[in-house]
Amino acid sequence: MKNVLKFLLAALAVLPMSLTAQPQPQHTPPAGTQPNEHNIKGAEYPRIGEDGRTYWRFYAPNAEKVEISFRGAMTKEADGYWTYVSPEPEVVGIHYYQMIIDGVSVADPNGIPYFGMGQWVSAIEIPERGVDYYSEQEVPHGDVRESWYYSNIRNEWRRCFVYTPAEYETNPKAKYPVLYLQHGMAEDETGWWRQGKMNFIMDNLIASGKAVPMIVVMDSGNIEVAFNGRSGQTREQYGADFTPILLTEIIPHIEAKYRTLTDREHRAMAGLSWGGLQTFNTALPNLDKFSYIGGFSGAGSINLNELGTAYNGAFADIEAFNKKVHLLFMGIGSEENPGRTRSLADGLKAAGLTNVVYYESPGTAHEFLTWRRCLHEFAPLLFQK
Amino acid sequence: MKNVLKFLLAALAVLPMSLTAQPQPQHTPPAGTQPNEHNIKGAEYPRIGEDGRTYWRFYAPNAEKVEISFRGAMTKEADGYWTYVSPEPEVVGIHYYQMIIDGVSVADPNGIPYFGMGQWVSAIEIPERGVDYYSEQEVPHGDVRESWYYSNIRNEWRRCFVYTPAEYETNPKAKYPVLYLQHGMAEDETGWWRQGKMNFIMDNLIASGKAVPMIVVMDSGNIEVAFNGRSGQTREQYGADFTPILLTEIIPHIEAKYRTLTDREHRAMAGLSWGGLQTFNTALPNLDKFSYIGGFSGAGSINLNELGTAYNGAFADIEAFNKKVHLLFMGIGSEENPGRTRSLADGLKAAGLTNVVYYESPGTAHEFLTWRRCLHEFAPLLFQK
Repeated sequence: MKNVLKFLLAALAVLPMSLTAQPQPQHTPPAGTQPNEHNIKGAEYPRIGEDGRTYWRFYAPNAEKVEISFRGAMTKEADGYWTYVSPEPEVVGIHYYQMIIDGVSVADPNGIPYFGMGQWVSAIEIPERGVDYYSEQEVPHGDVRESWYYSNIRNEWRRCFVYTPAEYETNPKAKYPVLYLQHGMAEDETGWWRQGKMNFIMDNLIASGKAVPMIVVMDSGNIEVAFNGRSGQTREQYGADFTPILLTEIIPHIEAKYRTLTDREHRAMAGLSWGGLQTFNTALPNLDKFSYIGGFSGAGSINLNELGTAYNGAFADIEAFNKKVHLLFMGIGSEENPGRTRSLADGLKAAGLTNVVYYESPGTAHEFLTWRRCLHEFAPLLFQK
Repeated sequence: MKNVLKFLLAALAVLPMSLTAQPQPQHTPPAGTQPNEHNIKGAEYPRIGEDGRTYWRFYAPNAEKVEISFRGAMTKEADGYWTYVSPEPEVVGIHYYQMIIDGVSVADPNGIPYFGMGQWVSAIEIPERGVDYYSEQEVPHGDVRESWYYSNIRNEWRRCFVYTPAEYETNPKAKYPVLYLQHGMAEDETGWWRQGKMNFIMDNLIASGKAVPMIVVMDSGNIEVAFNGRSGQTREQYGADFTPILLTEIIPHIEAKYRTLTDREHRAMAGLSWGGLQTFNTALPNLDKFSYIGGFSGAGSINLNELGTAYNGAFADIEAFNKKVHLLFMGIGSEENPGRTRSLADGLKAAGLTNVVYYESPGTAHEFLTWRRCLHEFAPLLFQK
């Protein structure tokens, strides 16, 4: 008997639906506010006001206390929601936060989780007006690829993310220069792609002719656990095994798999915060491998009085350094105490370095808006010699 | 005066460190248990026992009540941790869960967040013994790429994930067949790649010669919000706009950007759960475009008594169907009421369909282990004609 045989969705029979979603608020949001761009689809809160004030509303009828990290305690309303409005406009840029529910810090279930501060965090972004260099635009788009390789140094499978420019697909014989681009402390290989929007920055720069098409490689700097939570490692040891992994495993993997230009003239390295320190520690003692170098909001220590012996003698012969290193870029936000970085750049210039570029991002602090701007300034200077 | 100018890490000056990480337990974990493979690096809990029992420990000293979804309430210990041990061994496979902290459901801060059930969930996996078809192995690895395009139908920038096989990089003139592979209800374009480990399954199948090298495209089926949370859409409307997006936007995007074989003989579609329904709804009425079809734990409704009129008459001429459709695959887990799917496969075979393949995954339910196995059975059957 093959009577009305219904092939019903097994899904509907067994999919457990008991998870409690954050219910959508029934009320009307304050006029002139927009949902935060890092919310999941359909989540109305948090919201941003026209003046940069942030508006929060979170459903937790049974909680005793709900806080927003870096902001403060929320107020419990009669309908089970907790609310908060920032007393002042918040500064432009992308800011990490967590919800703290009766003392437990978690990523906001209404937001896209990012890996930052050694944990899953959410992000709220106060948008810049009239700026589109990091937005999706109608230009050819490169791909960001997850690329796997085995590390004998760490005895583990690792992945890096590899940006290949749009024209990589259509020029099957072309070979490309490579920028190795590192995240900061307590972030990972996803940071530049997810929070940093590096792919849109590169797409737009390349489409406008401001930057040459290049491959960008982003790996884990082995600093996912913040330094102050790391036991048994000195400051010098922290993240230091990234240098041999990059030099002897990642670069060979990339150059074997992708169509790359493999000489030092076509290899750059940059990093943000602790990734800037790793960049200086990796590139400066290995100038046979790198010719463009960048530190965004962080780099190594340089004692200008001992410049000749710093970084394995990289600066011992200033004239040779100027010929070899086409760019030594130092970027930093104006709101994160840029004085020392500016002074270092000035000092290096005064010492005779001709290819030092200092960039100060106006009005931004130690966060990804500073670093998006740094990349946007840095990338056009690469591989132009 | 350029005296001992220190370029200190701006990071250390301004990086806010006040987020509270889940502290690591000081106690000794139960003998024979291992951390869940979906924990973040360094997180010891949850753990899996040798017999499949699960062990949980979660720090929430100020919470009134902590629960694990689908399991139950945890027990508060004197040290601020909450604990739970599953009363029975859990079934093999990857199971979504959330932590419920005083009534608020969130992804476990100690786990990797996945998008499932319309929210961020964590996953605990009871490993299969002696199975490595979805593990990273020492074989050539394909890339999973994030690929952006603009949808005029939805007026939005969209991304799909595109698996290109390892040899795509080394055979610059080769063109490849394409499998369009869809996720289930309340999941998104990341599901097959992240939870499903489709890239390792394909790498291993291709390396062993069991499957031909192919491109696999994974997009959002526009069903991120579960059907029962969706307002204003009938069952027929829910996710239905995915069909024109696939046919008129995604396929043209993929075929313009990647080296693909563009005839129906080299195009397949499959999906899991509601993605299986979307596959039947998309491929069966468009047999000029697809020649291999798969539904994993779900597909459309077929009334065998009205077979001739189903899906725009796809089955009206059985002989023509058999020539056109080289594979109509139906897979399902033995623990999710497979009877109706088995009967449908039998009924279709009895009606004269020669290329129906029914696969029943032993001991698994409505979750990604069933679907990994389905893909592992399905992919070797593709593009062999």
